[in-house]
Amino acid sequence: LAAYVDEFPVETIFLCVVDPGVGGDRTLGVLRSDRRWYVGPDNGLFEPVARRGRDQARWWEITWRPENLSATFHGRDLLAPVAARLACGEPPAGIERPIASIRRPDWPDELHQVIYIDGFGNAMTGIRAAAIPPGARLEVAGRRLDHATTFSEVPFGRAFWYENANGLAEIAVNRGRADDVLGLAAGIAVKIAKV
Amino acid sequence: LAAYVDEFPVETIFLCVVDPGVGGDRTLGVLRSDRRWYVGPDNGLFEPVARRGRDQARWWEITWRPENLSATFHGRDLLAPVAARLACGEPPAGIERPIASIRRPDWPDELHQVIYIDGFGNAMTGIRAAAIPPGARLEVAGRRLDHATTFSEVPFGRAFWYENANGLAEIAVNRGRADDVLGLAAGIAVKIAKV
Amino acid sequence: LAAYVDEFPVETIFLCVVDPGVGGDRTLGVLRSDRRWYVGPDNGLFEPVARRGRDQARWWEITWRPENLSATFHGRDLLAPVAARLACGEPPAGIERPIASIRRPDWPDELHQVIYIDGFGNAMTGIRAAAIPPGARLEVAGRRLDHATTFSEVPFGRAFWYENANGLAEIAVNRGRADDVLGLAAGIAVKIAKV
Repeated sequence: LAAYVDEFPVETIFLCVVDPGVGGDRTLGVLRSDRRWYVGPDNGLFEPVARRGRDQARWWEITWRPENLSATFHGRDLLAPVAARLACGEPPAGIERPIASIRRPDWPDELHQVIYIDGFGNAMTGIRAAAIPPGARLEVAGRRLDHATTFSEVPFGRAFWYENANGLAEIAVNRGRADDVLGLAAGIAVKIAKV
Repeated sequence: LAAYVDEFPVETIFLCVVDPGVGGDRTLGVLRSDRRWYVGPDNGLFEPVARRGRDQARWWEITWRPENLSATFHGRDLLAPVAARLACGEPPAGIERPIASIRRPDWPDELHQVIYIDGFGNAMTGIRAAAIPPGARLEVAGRRLDHATTFSEVPFGRAFWYENANGLAEIAVNRGRADDVLGLAAGIAVKIAKV
Repeated sequence: LAAYVDEFPVETIFLCVVDPGVGGDRTLGVLRSDRRWYVGPDNGLFEPVARRGRDQARWWEITWRPENLSATFHGRDLLAPVAARLACGEPPAGIERPIASIRRPDWPDELHQVIYIDGFGNAMTGIRAAAIPPGARLEVAGRRLDHATTFSEVPFGRAFWYENANGLAEIAVNRGRADDVLGLAAGIAVKIAKV
């Protein structure tokens, strides 16, 4: 999420439904950061946004409840209407709480893991490319991968890492599937090798 | 289809292209039920809609034909233009037939099968949760599954069933894939265990 | 691409991001053919469009560059803004070059391969059905497949080929997955059997 938001205009409203704890005791809320709105659960999803924001983020706990609330789809029944009201110019449907109440100061700045496999088998990591020393290699699944700027720089079938279009380090194989070639899946550790 | 329609406003037009018999001798038509429109094949798709409707449904057989009709994509070439004309306020492009001509009175109210595996591996059944006695367990693939209200109620990795956000019984594993864990696929039988 | 374009109105703008050479030395440009616009890389993607066009196609090499250009997503950073400017009525953001500079006259008219497996397991080929003699069978993966007009003409589980809704020969199994049943994947050879 944090890797994408800077491309969006101010006053964008992000409806963020990554909510495996739906129906449990997590809080739902509205975040205001760098003049953009975020609606979603307080489960850490907003920590990188708040941390990287240039202003001081604010947080409202959603207290409004819809007439019909399903047990397992609060994105549809509760968060979407709250986002829609923001889009209509209404204030957040809740009570402001200290932003510190949702922060995770002990979390690392980068997540040294594969976080997503896309439809082409490329493996996105949680490491911003800017946090990797120039020339450094990445270690994943027992392999050391060199950096390349583009796919077309490397021979067909070779694995490498590159800065993807959102600024994150991503592992790929030119004209191949990195997940198959390297045996990758979300959650696998990625290490920055000593230069 | 029937599980979703009540959430939509009246005068909604549903373009329903589930048409494995395309090009065969099935009839295409327009259903009117509870002030909503449905355009699609007469292959049983509309039976639960007509059965659960609060008013008496009506049916028009589509007689209009486009200039160019492909053999295998009537959804694009024939049904979509008919739906578009309805959206423009025109009447159904066909001849009204008795609604009894498309009804399937011998069909059961619930389908005791897995009907769909979603992208997360959850297995939706054709059984409305309201038709299952409180506390009952579901039997599927040799396993008996307890009910839970939400994912977060059960430990990681445990299989359970719950009422999904459309009112259907659905089989899931908290933070796991029910299809992999239980060996599920569309068509597998699901039984309501005696309480 | 060429199989679809005739269905679109004149002045349609196609944003064509099939760009495995992104960041390499391929040229990006704008094609004008049959009063439609195409924005994308010069990697052969536009050859069938230009070849089948009824008028003489024209080509502009894109010389405009955005302020921020990622290394691996020129579709987003460069081609999309160029297409947006065309949509606003501006001329192509580049310099006109001879159309011959992007043509591939030695390429065949049909590609005798599986080119795409869709979500149902159907295998689209690069052969236009109109280029296959009536009654001819297709050979693929060691099997000879008869022609059928629709799925419903053949028994459940039988493989066949048909003219799909875009005019291409496509290999399918009625109520089954052709990719699984026949062992198909993109790139596999497809031959027109002697009648």
